[in-house]
Amino acid sequence: MSVALLGKPCADKIFENVSKGLQGRNAALYTLGFDDPQWKQYVSSLSRNAEKCGVNVNAVFLRPDVSAQTLCNYVKEACAQTDAVGVLVEQPLPVVYREAYSFIDISLDVDCLNPLSIAALYGNKSGFRPATPSAVVRLLDFYGVELEGKHVVIIGRGGVGKPLALMMLNRNATVTVCHSKTVNLAEVCRSADVLVSACGVPSLVTNEFVTEKTVVVDVGLNFDKGKTCGDVSSDCTKCSAISPVPGGVGPVTRAILFENMLKAFQAK
Amino acid sequence: MSVALLGKPCADKIFENVSKGLQGRNAALYTLGFDDPQWKQYVSSLSRNAEKCGVNVNAVFLRPDVSAQTLCNYVKEACAQTDAVGVLVEQPLPVVYREAYSFIDISLDVDCLNPLSIAALYGNKSGFRPATPSAVVRLLDFYGVELEGKHVVIIGRGGVGKPLALMMLNRNATVTVCHSKTVNLAEVCRSADVLVSACGVPSLVTNEFVTEKTVVVDVGLNFDKGKTCGDVSSDCTKCSAISPVPGGVGPVTRAILFENMLKAFQAK
Repeated sequence: MSVALLGKPCADKIFENVSKGLQGRNAALYTLGFDDPQWKQYVSSLSRNAEKCGVNVNAVFLRPDVSAQTLCNYVKEACAQTDAVGVLVEQPLPVVYREAYSFIDISLDVDCLNPLSIAALYGNKSGFRPATPSAVVRLLDFYGVELEGKHVVIIGRGGVGKPLALMMLNRNATVTVCHSKTVNLAEVCRSADVLVSACGVPSLVTNEFVTEKTVVVDVGLNFDKGKTCGDVSSDCTKCSAISPVPGGVGPVTRAILFENMLKAFQAK
Repeated sequence: MSVALLGKPCADKIFENVSKGLQGRNAALYTLGFDDPQWKQYVSSLSRNAEKCGVNVNAVFLRPDVSAQTLCNYVKEACAQTDAVGVLVEQPLPVVYREAYSFIDISLDVDCLNPLSIAALYGNKSGFRPATPSAVVRLLDFYGVELEGKHVVIIGRGGVGKPLALMMLNRNATVTVCHSKTVNLAEVCRSADVLVSACGVPSLVTNEFVTEKTVVVDVGLNFDKGKTCGDVSSDCTKCSAISPVPGGVGPVTRAILFENMLKAFQAK
């Protein structure tokens, strides 16, 4: 039976520290996105965290016919606010709107959306790292999982897999990135000390993908028959440790976002 | 005995095409760097290629006491020239000068030095890719080495290894990045279909690192007892194919730089 890498204790510790630093400091998160249910739900979930940290949330929900210019202006306006400690823009955005990311001041770019923040991530220079891959690393650190010299296998080369690969390299792990075109996926995964799945395929990772020593982090967030589930099958029980979905990486991701806001505040 | 993946036939083909496109077109490469022997030698070697392609080279060699502001101004000036089809700035530069890369117009950034070009590489968006990793991919393509679904192992996570990892992912390879902290390096390398060494350690890669099926690309450029050599030991003969040093990736790298200049010219 594998150990559960629960996100809550890790997230609680981060939130406690953020609360101390931001309560009563007139700090605000600015969010900009369209008036669609998924983004609204995300902002609403962030608002609950924000309240506990003493962060105000200023959310703008745009009409679908808004121009790219208008969105860019909103972003610039948000960045100019004296109480701003973070500016979040919905992602992914349709191509025509993407220039908006470039207008996020990198000192407020708490989820690493501006191309200049991405270049800093790539170059291992100072700057904000995206919240989800940061949460994977933090969760592993919290549970004392060694990364240096270990073989980290990542399934997925998208918005989580790619930055995570770079971050794991910076932690001196040997990194393999797998994806839909990988041959012998299960076999490659079995060579991992740490296996991270971030591909959004429900129940992809089975016992065949792991050994008794594998530590598994499940970054999948899928909906199957009305239930939230990850990329890891429920019968994947052989591995030494595994992060559940929900309740694993998710809470830590939100905590990291607010920790980034604390850093933005402290750097002012 | 392994097949030699010679760079010359691949480079010749590229240069032929570049010559056709740039001869008599009043195209110029602008280079900016310090007055040090290595950079001067590189510029002089580029000048020989440039002459054959009909590209003028305008080289500025800076005094060591020049300010970052002055270098930035030179870069801006170079980008403003109507005949410019490429602007190259010495790399690596001391930290204080690095902002100069940001002033290279991305339409002339033929070696992918501007952070915005790097973000485009990361995001697999259109833009120039760095010449050396591009040359690795091109050399493999030239010799018909399949990449999709193959396991590409890269030794090195620096200025070649990192962009190459991203480019190989975009080519649907499964990618492993190894480095100085990798445990069981030879064993990991033996799992490769394609092994690329870009770490600058002479004779690191031996027969122990390969199988009879491995295709090896040697990106090392080392100097040992006055002789140029790569990262692959001369007694690594078991693999199916190998690119020599000198005469492998190097000539293709310079060809790719000029091909990028042709692209810059065509996009004007």
